Parts: sequence; structure tokens; C-alpha cells
Amino acid sequence: MATNITFHPGSVTQDERNQLLNQKGATIWLTGLSASGKSTIATALEQHLLHKKLHAYRLDGDNIRFGLNKDLGFDQASRVENIRRIGEVSLLFSLSSTIAITAFISPYVSDRELARTLHENHSPAIPFIEVYVDAPLSVVEQRDPKGLYKKARAGEIKDFTGISAPYEAPAKPEIHIRTDQVDVAGAVEIIVKYLEEKGLIPA
Amino acid sequence: MATNITFHPGSVTQDERNQLLNQKGATIWLTGLSASGKSTIATALEQHLLHKKLHAYRLDGDNIRFGLNKDLGFDQASRVENIRRIGEVSLLFSLSSTIAITAFISPYVSDRELARTLHENHSPAIPFIEVYVDAPLSVVEQRDPKGLYKKARAGEIKDFTGISAPYEAPAKPEIHIRTDQVDVAGAVEIIVKYLEEKGLIPA
Repeated sequence: MATNITFHPGSVTQDERNQLLNQKGATIWLTGLSASGKSTIATALEQHLLHKKLHAYRLDGDNIRFGLNKDLGFDQASRVENIRRIGEVSLLFSLSSTIAITAFISPYVSDRELARTLHENHSPAIPFIEVYVDAPLSVVEQRDPKGLYKKARAGEIKDFTGISAPYEAPAKPEIHIRTDQVDVAGAVEIIVKYLEEKGLIPA
Repeated sequence: MATNITFHPGSVTQDERNQLLNQKGATIWLTGLSASGKSTIATALEQHLLHKKLHAYRLDGDNIRFGLNKDLGFDQASRVENIRRIGEVSLLFSLSSTIAITAFISPYVSDRELARTLHENHSPAIPFIEVYVDAPLSVVEQRDPKGLYKKARAGEIKDFTGISAPYEAPAKPEIHIRTDQVDVAGAVEIIVKYLEEKGLIPA
């Protein structure tokens, strides 16, 4: 069979892939309380990058909890495994030269550090950008779009982050978004500027 | 804070994403015996697509078994869960307008059908292209690059596909590669032509 397909043995390197696709991968890991605005910022950021013709993909509760992680419950071991898998999948997206954007409460330092380590210990290292979406508890509790804080206060939901379970704020996030100071567009702009300054996307 | 970021509420549709990135997603699911050539074909196909400036990403044992699925063993339930997760992750890649290429033995019809259903029942439906990498057992057993068939024959590996566990060949794969008739380049060409004919990549 005659063929015009040519290739070299072995897979392409990360550099070769990035050059061929003219894009670098990275994981942008949003963390913050429920109703802090993670999903809204993630959605707006994804949309902005896509309009710049950059491959970006958002991982959030909608496409993870009902898909890949639908076998997991909400006990402590399941919450760890939930974040571990999200870390692994975001790494795979980054390796494919896509910008992965994750939007999960991810309240524990240890879980986020595991996700970071997966990226930073990879050879070659992959950028892991922790974004602390910092909204005061009083604000998110007043927003309470799904009535979850009310239920948590009433004891109808157990182990609810910020009420009956801890939120461990990042000590040194790459980006700190104060939602009392910037709106969604402002938050996206901060992240985009960071990506530009780091050479991860064209300025 | 002044900002030049604009966006519309909500996320982009699949059509909008595909148009913005000028690419459609799909999952190319290779199935076949150990040593049939799945990984080699997947690697060559990925390389070909990348050189066409198309986002493509290969999922195989190297990046899945030691990452996302490193918590899984090799008992029957773990093998089902292994393939389920790969199906979910390949769907996510497809939804990101990337061509996902999976290279796993995936010997059971039921597991492959689950992966297919995830794609075809998604709204909108995502193309799932099952590629049967068909190499005779006598051939792969003679190749035996890792000595696995020998160990399986000696009873040192249990439940080895083709020897002591079944391989359920696809009844109606989208593509049937007979490795005794085509080489790696020929196999890639068959798959590429299929993608072109279906309008999934530019001709």
C-alpha cells in the first residue's frame, strides 16, 4: 500500500508539541469557598482564552462530579481522591498544550500541594498556577445562591467548608483575587496578565 | 479597575468552541491484543496530527496507569474502572476540541460500549471511532517484546488477554486494521482518511 504518511519513531517532546501547536500548557487552579466566584471566573477566563484562539478547558463540578468522579462520595477519602484525579487530569490537559482551568473548593493545603507536585515534579515541569479566589465568608454566606450555607448552618449538610469544615487558605498562591476589590472581568484580567508576563500566552 | 476584558455570561457551546479553535474533537479508541501495535499506531497518528497543527493527545498505559489510575489493581472490577475512567477522560479531551487517541487492550465489548455510550449519549454527541488493531495471536505471541506471552503461557501471569482471558473482538468497529496487511504508516493513513472523509479534520 502506497502511503504519504511519514513519521519518526517515538513520541514528540513537550517542546516539539508546544512549538507545533504554538501553545504552552498550564494548569490554573482556582480555590476558594463555595459561592466565592470560582466557576464564574473560570468560565469567563476560558471564554477569553478561546476567543484568543487558545485551547483552554475548564474542569468543574458539572463535568467531573457527574462523569469521571461519579463513583466518589463525600467522605474524607473520597474528597482526597476527587482532588487527586482532578490534579492528574489537569496535568494531562496541560501536557496536551491546553490551558486547564480547575474550579473546585479544594479546601485542604495537602490536596492542592499534591496537585501542584504532580505538575512541578513532572519532567519537564508544567506550570501550576494557584489562584486564591478570596471572598469573605460573610459575603458568600449572604449570596448563598443554592441555599447551601443556610442548610449547613441548620446542620442539614455536614462538613460544609467554612461552616463546619475548615477552609485552609493558600499561604503563597501565585495569584490572590480579592473579590471585594475586583469584579469578574477584573479577575480575568489579573490572571491573563500573569499568563502573559510568564510567557505562557502571547501578550 | 479599568479592564479590556469582555465576555458573555455562560460557557461557549461546543459549536462555538470548535469554530473558535477551528478544530473538532473526537475519540479514536484503539483496541487489540497486547503487542498488536496499538501504541505504535497511536504514537504515529498523534505525531501526524500534531504536524498538521491539530491538537491531539494520546492516552496509554504510560500516562494513565502510573497517574490517574495508579490506585487501581488488575482484578476484574479495577479493569472495568480503568476503562471507564479512560472513557471519561477521552470524552473531556474531545469536548475540549482535541482528538483523543486511546491505546489500551480494552478486551471486553461491554467496557468499550460504555466508553462509546458516554460519547454518543453526550449532548451534543461526540464522535467515537473504534479502531480494531487486528493482529493474529500467533504473530503477537511470536513478537512478545516484553516476554508477557511467555510468562502467561507458563502461568506466571494470570488472566492474560488472548491466553487465559478472552479478547472480545469488535463486531462493527468503525475501522478494522489488519496488521498483516498494512504497516504503521498504512494504518495511520487509513485512520487519517476516515477522519478526513467524516469532516473531522481538513482534507
